[in-house]
Amino acid sequence: MMREHYFTFGKFVSQVHLQKELPRADDIFQDNRASRSILISDIHTEAIARSIGQNYDIPHCVLPGGEAAKGWPAVERILAAAKAGGLGRDGLFIAVGGGVVSDLAAFAASIYMRGCKLCIVSTTLLGMVDAALGGKTGFDLFGIKNLAGTFYPAGHIYLSLDALTTLPRREWKSGMAELIKTALLEDGGEMEERLKVLGPAFEAGDLLLGHDGALFELVSASVRLKGRIVEADPEESGTERALLNLGHTFAHALESSAGFGTLSHGEAVAWGLVRSGELGHHMGITPLERAREIKDLVLSFGYEIATPHPKMGDWDVFLQALRGDKKQWAGKLRFVIPTAHGAQVVQDDLIEERLLYPLINGEYML
Amino acid sequence: MMREHYFTFGKFVSQVHLQKELPRADDIFQDNRASRSILISDIHTEAIARSIGQNYDIPHCVLPGGEAAKGWPAVERILAAAKAGGLGRDGLFIAVGGGVVSDLAAFAASIYMRGCKLCIVSTTLLGMVDAALGGKTGFDLFGIKNLAGTFYPAGHIYLSLDALTTLPRREWKSGMAELIKTALLEDGGEMEERLKVLGPAFEAGDLLLGHDGALFELVSASVRLKGRIVEADPEESGTERALLNLGHTFAHALESSAGFGTLSHGEAVAWGLVRSGELGHHMGITPLERAREIKDLVLSFGYEIATPHPKMGDWDVFLQALRGDKKQWAGKLRFVIPTAHGAQVVQDDLIEERLLYPLINGEYML
Repeated sequence: MMREHYFTFGKFVSQVHLQKELPRADDIFQDNRASRSILISDIHTEAIARSIGQNYDIPHCVLPGGEAAKGWPAVERILAAAKAGGLGRDGLFIAVGGGVVSDLAAFAASIYMRGCKLCIVSTTLLGMVDAALGGKTGFDLFGIKNLAGTFYPAGHIYLSLDALTTLPRREWKSGMAELIKTALLEDGGEMEERLKVLGPAFEAGDLLLGHDGALFELVSASVRLKGRIVEADPEESGTERALLNLGHTFAHALESSAGFGTLSHGEAVAWGLVRSGELGHHMGITPLERAREIKDLVLSFGYEIATPHPKMGDWDVFLQALRGDKKQWAGKLRFVIPTAHGAQVVQDDLIEERLLYPLINGEYML
Repeated sequence: MMREHYFTFGKFVSQVHLQKELPRADDIFQDNRASRSILISDIHTEAIARSIGQNYDIPHCVLPGGEAAKGWPAVERILAAAKAGGLGRDGLFIAVGGGVVSDLAAFAASIYMRGCKLCIVSTTLLGMVDAALGGKTGFDLFGIKNLAGTFYPAGHIYLSLDALTTLPRREWKSGMAELIKTALLEDGGEMEERLKVLGPAFEAGDLLLGHDGALFELVSASVRLKGRIVEADPEESGTERALLNLGHTFAHALESSAGFGTLSHGEAVAWGLVRSGELGHHMGITPLERAREIKDLVLSFGYEIATPHPKMGDWDVFLQALRGDKKQWAGKLRFVIPTAHGAQVVQDDLIEERLLYPLINGEYML
C-alpha cells in the first residue's frame, strides 16, 4: 500500500508519499538532502516524532498543542531551535503533526534565512487531505486566523495511515468534512460513491481504519484533486484555487460567531457545505437535487446541519465575520457554489447581504 | 531628470523610477492600484512620508529609527496598522525610508494575508543602490542580522535625489561604499571612472548633490547592474547573486567584532573591499595592480582601510562571525574575489582559515 504523487506549484516541486507505515529518518534523509535538521512536533505528536528520529541525534522542538498555540511565539521557538541546531539555508525542518504544526513549521521554514528545506509528516486526516499539501503556511494574529503567512510548499510530504490509529474521533470527523468537500469538487463522482458507502459505518461509530483500502483511495484521490487545483493557481491569484474554499465562507463565520474552538473546523465546514448548496439553489445555480444530495451526504456522517446552528452565537458577529472575509476580495462577498458537477466561484453584487439572514436562520432549508 | 528601469525577478516585476522629485500620493496610486494603503516610515522619514501622503487620509505607521528597531515588534506594529486600516490582499504598503524601513515593511507585506502589494520610496543613498531593489526582506533575530526574511520584490521603487538633500554625511558615506562595490563588478569601468572624479571632492567634505548629473548616472548604472544580477539568480540559489556580496564576508565579521552600530555598514564594506583584493591577490586570482586600484579608490573617499581595523574587537569574535557565515553555504567559507574585470565567487577548501589571521592583521597589505 504505497503511492506517490508529484506536483509543481510555481517554482516548487512537492512529492507526496502515501503509504501505510510512518517514514523513518533514513527515508527522510534519502529524500531530502540536508546537512542538518530539526524535528518539530506538538505534545500530541511528540512520541511519533521521537520514533521517527530514533537512532539519530536530531534536535526536537515540541510545541504546545492546539489552535491557541498558533501564534508568533511558537514560530520564534522553532526559529530558535533551528539556530541552536546550527542549521543553514540547506537545513531541513521536519514537521510532524496536524495542520497547526505543519502551518507553523512551514511558515518558520519559509522565513529562516529567507527559506530553508521543509518536509511534512502529516499525522491527522485533516492534515493529510488539506493542510499538508499546497503551500499555505501561517499563524494567527490579532485574533484573525492565518492573518500572517506565506506560500511555501514542502518538498516531501509523508501521509501514513498508521499515524491515524490513535487519532481521536473528533479529529476524524474534522478531516472527513474536508474529504467530503473535495469529493463535491470531483467531476466523475467516484469519491462521492465511496463516501456514500462509508458514511453510515462512520456514523455508527466506526473509524475508517477497518476500511483502509477505501480510505487509502479516498486520501489519494483527494490529494490528486487538490494538487491539480493548486497547480493551476498556486497563490490563489485567480479563482481556481478558491474552489477549495467550498463551504468555508460560511464555516469561518460560524466558527467566529460560536467562538473559535467551540466547533472543530470540519464540523463548521460540513455545515457550510449544506449552506452553500442552499444558497446556490436560491440563486438558481445549484440544481435542487444536487443541493439535497449534498445535504444527505453530510448528514450521513452525523454532522449537525440545522439552521441556525445550535452553537451559533450572535448574528451580528456572524455577519461581521462574513464582511471581514469580503476584505480579501476587493470588497465583495465571495462564495463557492456547488454546480451539478463541481463548483464555481461567485463574487459580485449578485449576492446581497439580505439573502443571508433568512438562509442562516432556516427559511431556505431544503 | 527621470529614468525608468524594469526588472523581472522570478514571478515578480519591479519598476524603478529614478527622478529628482519625490513622488506624490497621486503618482503612487496611479502606478499601484489598491483599494486601501498604509504609509510606513521611521522617525527620520516621518516628515517626507507625511508630505507624500498629504491630501489623502492614509494611515501612517511610524517606527523608531535605526538597526536596533529591526525586530519582530516592528513587523507586528506594521501588521497591526494594516489590519486597523482594513487592508485586504489587494492593499498597498508604501514604505518611506532607508534599508531598515524598507526591509521591515517589505517583510511585513510579504506575510500580510500571505502577501499584499508593496512599493518603496527610498530616502537614503544606501537604500537606493542596495536595499530597495532585489526583493531581500528581513529582520534581526537572536542577535543575527536578517536571520528571518523572505524574497519579495516591490512592484514600484521610487528613487528621488531630492530625498538626499537632508541626508547626514555618515549616511552618504555608508551608501558610497555600496556604489563602489557595484562599480567593481561592472565590466566596462564607466562607474569606476566617474567615482575616481568624485572621490577627492567627497573626501574634501562635498556631498554629491552639487554633482547631481554624475550622481544620477551612478545610481542609474548601479540599479541596472544590480537588477541584471538579481534577474539571473533572484533567490541566490546559484552563485550569480552572491557577487553582490563582494567585500561583505569581511564586512559582516568586522561589524560583528566591533559591535553592531559601531561602524556604519558602508564603512565596514569599504574595508572589506580592500581585504577581498588582498586575499584575491594572495590566492593568485586578483592581479596586484587591480588590488591596488581598489585600495586607492576606497581610500580616495576617505575610508579607514588599515589592518587590523582600529575599531575591530576580539579576533575570536571576528573568526566566529566568519564561521557563522560558513553555515549558510554548506559548511564552506565563501568569499567574492575581485578579478581584473569583475569578481568571482570562491567557495571551497582553497580558503584555509589560517590565511585569515595574517590577512586581517596587516601582513598582506599591498
